[in-house]
Amino acid sequence: MIATRPTVRQPRGDATRSQILDVAERIFADIGYAAARLDHVAETVGIRRPSILYYFPGKQQLYDEVEADIFASMHSFVLNRTDGVTDPMARLLALLDAWLDFLVSRPTAARIIQRLIADSAAYGNNPVRFSESALQDLEDVVTTGVASGQFQPVSAMVLLNTVAGGALHYVCNAHQLGPTRSYDPAAPAQLTEFRAMMHRLAKAAVAPQG
Amino acid sequence: MIATRPTVRQPRGDATRSQILDVAERIFADIGYAAARLDHVAETVGIRRPSILYYFPGKQQLYDEVEADIFASMHSFVLNRTDGVTDPMARLLALLDAWLDFLVSRPTAARIIQRLIADSAAYGNNPVRFSESALQDLEDVVTTGVASGQFQPVSAMVLLNTVAGGALHYVCNAHQLGPTRSYDPAAPAQLTEFRAMMHRLAKAAVAPQG
Repeated sequence: MIATRPTVRQPRGDATRSQILDVAERIFADIGYAAARLDHVAETVGIRRPSILYYFPGKQQLYDEVEADIFASMHSFVLNRTDGVTDPMARLLALLDAWLDFLVSRPTAARIIQRLIADSAAYGNNPVRFSESALQDLEDVVTTGVASGQFQPVSAMVLLNTVAGGALHYVCNAHQLGPTRSYDPAAPAQLTEFRAMMHRLAKAAVAPQG
Repeated sequence: MIATRPTVRQPRGDATRSQILDVAERIFADIGYAAARLDHVAETVGIRRPSILYYFPGKQQLYDEVEADIFASMHSFVLNRTDGVTDPMARLLALLDAWLDFLVSRPTAARIIQRLIADSAAYGNNPVRFSESALQDLEDVVTTGVASGQFQPVSAMVLLNTVAGGALHYVCNAHQLGPTRSYDPAAPAQLTEFRAMMHRLAKAAVAPQG
């Protein structure tokens, strides 16, 4: 493709590049990094393996770009939703809502993050090289809330593993609990019920103990 | 081994079988089902690949036995802890404590369940063929609590995805959040803090709304 159509390389390249990333994200979500094969990505996109290597030097770089984009997009989503929200509790709920809505709208991201938590240092030496922004977003909100006295002294990590992590399971478990318990995480009634519980738990988690 | 030492096959076989299961559980936890290789299991145990095939017809059967044992053990753990506990709230907390303590003591199980949630029907057509007992344990407690009027009408699945699922993230995230946030999930102070939050959230989740 590159050799035969040099004049349209840039525009066509961009579309192909973005298609490779979309397909790769789905495959990494479905079967995980270790089992994913570039051949499979190429075949699904409808190109040959060397064409992928033109855009990405290898599987690790392709994966890295997928994961980096997930956390960068999630961070933008949070910034957009929390911009101008100063009350700590409102800010915490806006952050949790942003994560929930982001993951519901991009379930492949939820499954990739879910895998990232399971993988024992599978993706190199620094497991937070892309997720650091998300962790800092939560830590900032918690630190401010605790400093203001509105929150009890609570650890951001405990909040992450309980209230915030719930959004991952909510999205990922939709079809993993057997046919009779299957649900659509994007269905308004379902999402409203889950969001109400998430808010209730967030408030309970940070409420100063009487 | 089988051919050369037939007289000690049974005792030796049992020890080898159980060693294969231990190693396989660690490898499935570390890299997932799709990426795991029987060669790798054999090499780690210190036997040849055909010896594994003597005990397990293939990777799927080996995986199935690992997952079945995880959920059977977890279910026994729950039965033991909830036996004789009739108050719905006490029963819910005993169930959550049982899951938390089980997962903390067997982190490979936590990572395998975490992967099971991420995998989109990767393990055959019935994702709950082994986890059904765990789901029913939770549903029974929730149904009884709601029927008694002690709990608000809450969905067991919402509880699973929030309060109960937190134990998985607590165990799996221990070393996934970067060196400065690394923790030991089995350390008493850490576990006490997490358990207190889990109890607090469980109570908030089921408390009838005033």
